[in-house]
Amino acid sequence: MKTVRVEASGCYDVMIGSGILDQAGALLQKIMSPCRAAIITDDIVQGLFGSRVEKSLQAAGFKTEIFAFPNGEKQKTLQTLADALEWLAEIHLSRSDLVVALGGGVPGDLAGFAAAVYCRGVRFIQIPTTLLAAVDSSVGGKTAVDLKAGKNLAGAFHQPELVICDTDIMKNLPPELMRDGAAEMLKYGVLADAALFDRMADGSWLERMEETIAQCVEIKRDYVMQDELDNGARQFLNLGHTFGHAVEKCANFSITHGQGVGIGLVMAARAAGVEIERTEKGVSACGLPVKSPYSARELAEAALSDKKRRGGKITLVLPEKMGKCMLKTIPVEELPEYFAKGTGENP
Amino acid sequence: MKTVRVEASGCYDVMIGSGILDQAGALLQKIMSPCRAAIITDDIVQGLFGSRVEKSLQAAGFKTEIFAFPNGEKQKTLQTLADALEWLAEIHLSRSDLVVALGGGVPGDLAGFAAAVYCRGVRFIQIPTTLLAAVDSSVGGKTAVDLKAGKNLAGAFHQPELVICDTDIMKNLPPELMRDGAAEMLKYGVLADAALFDRMADGSWLERMEETIAQCVEIKRDYVMQDELDNGARQFLNLGHTFGHAVEKCANFSITHGQGVGIGLVMAARAAGVEIERTEKGVSACGLPVKSPYSARELAEAALSDKKRRGGKITLVLPEKMGKCMLKTIPVEELPEYFAKGTGENP
Repeated sequence: MKTVRVEASGCYDVMIGSGILDQAGALLQKIMSPCRAAIITDDIVQGLFGSRVEKSLQAAGFKTEIFAFPNGEKQKTLQTLADALEWLAEIHLSRSDLVVALGGGVPGDLAGFAAAVYCRGVRFIQIPTTLLAAVDSSVGGKTAVDLKAGKNLAGAFHQPELVICDTDIMKNLPPELMRDGAAEMLKYGVLADAALFDRMADGSWLERMEETIAQCVEIKRDYVMQDELDNGARQFLNLGHTFGHAVEKCANFSITHGQGVGIGLVMAARAAGVEIERTEKGVSACGLPVKSPYSARELAEAALSDKKRRGGKITLVLPEKMGKCMLKTIPVEELPEYFAKGTGENP
Repeated sequence: MKTVRVEASGCYDVMIGSGILDQAGALLQKIMSPCRAAIITDDIVQGLFGSRVEKSLQAAGFKTEIFAFPNGEKQKTLQTLADALEWLAEIHLSRSDLVVALGGGVPGDLAGFAAAVYCRGVRFIQIPTTLLAAVDSSVGGKTAVDLKAGKNLAGAFHQPELVICDTDIMKNLPPELMRDGAAEMLKYGVLADAALFDRMADGSWLERMEETIAQCVEIKRDYVMQDELDNGARQFLNLGHTFGHAVEKCANFSITHGQGVGIGLVMAARAAGVEIERTEKGVSACGLPVKSPYSARELAEAALSDKKRRGGKITLVLPEKMGKCMLKTIPVEELPEYFAKGTGENP
């Protein structure tokens, strides 16, 4: 088992290891007295892992209750949040109890947000069950739901007390979920570690899952600790996302986030004119698409409704070389130009 | 004009004075560069003060937009929050812009909550237009909406950048709104200042509005600064509220919050066996009821679904003498006994 320590406004450990889902209760008991644990998850994850988590928590003295909403990105709404909050109130969860976010990015972000606002904030832990959640959304304290106008537009910064990542779950994911996680892991490689990128590209990461996940979490952790509230360094983590979100939006979210990020990473490389072929090969080797059917103009328009725009400016993350990126703040008027480079329309 | 400085996780001034609504823009300009200002209010307040606030902000260079939801306690829901958040996204408010909470407790709590979670937090200011909001909800950073299961069960701690309280508005309130504010001001008297209580009881506060409001804000400020996140000293501010909320709940919220607090203050005095007559006289002099038609048992049951319960215990605020109170944490099983003393069923 590997442990990555995050020191933000709250300090906590991300624990990564084989079979540790069944140790959830024992690991939790080390950091808090037994209390009530309200598990928020989706129906598919509940069927797969719900009873194992309940059993483990109960064996350590926690009293569990479970709330499952229908699986899917479309559930990440204020309505599902409202349902979860009303459920927490119905079971009379108190301010000294605990919320357990069990699942992929959707249950993680939604349960975390519910924990952030229920009674103005209760403690929570993350148990990611997808690779994407393990390397990205479960670490760093960003919680959110989508609005009609865009993804993650309502949310809170709320750090978990513990993150438990069972690599056995990650090894047995359906291929699509594996690819979605790989997209973020490729991103960490482009951002901060060329060897990590190459290990993703040649497939050897699959043999070294625990170590590779821990490496990704450490990279994310370092950005989060520099800039918990996302006003500076944390923007590096948006690498591929301004481009990728625009693609997802144009596709009306019919592609996955990971597919968007895959395309976004290649567009960022093209926009910077750096490591284009290597990036394309790596993204492609992980089973992700490298281009979208949308024009630079369509994509740029979609991007301009993105929340990352500040005043009349937008900050892009652009590779300098593999493993090193820069922030570039440009007037929004220049954005179409970068998209035109990114799609290859205007190389 | 009086200024009360609050030093919490954010530092800000509460400005209290005659006619300062029309100086809102000029006051705001002193602490931030002009940006977009999204005013969230209700339809009645919009009609009364909306254009004055917009004019003042625009004169100082701010670009204003206004969103008004229907007036009333029943609007303080996740649905109205969702509407406000979607509106903020539609007008493309950015993370560096501003939300203006204009109105009584409902717009203040709701707009503050919207500001706390829109893009995971944007700046906001409070412009209270009721006495209750001026002395209570606009200060201290508690924001919330109600759930079906209870009041203020979903919310966030989010400190404003500035609070602007125009005493001319307070002097011209309808009697019911005046009384609701007076209930909280009586509370501050019982809590921390016997002379303040007596000034409320003899009506002389009406001649010294600016000074009296500032005094109330200072008392609240002192508790907030000791305990921003409401884990200790801030619980004193619940004086009269555990009892009062139970009355409001039994009445299915057909009485106002101030009426609930009025009755709650008298019940707290009775439960403590302290200053009963003086409290009753003061509450009554401010036009508020001193007792409810509900039995101790009904009230205690209503109180037990209250969020202030922690584990199996509940903390009551009980007067020791006029101007001084104590916290008393009791097992929930003992609560009916205190309610029986409070109603006078079991003196």
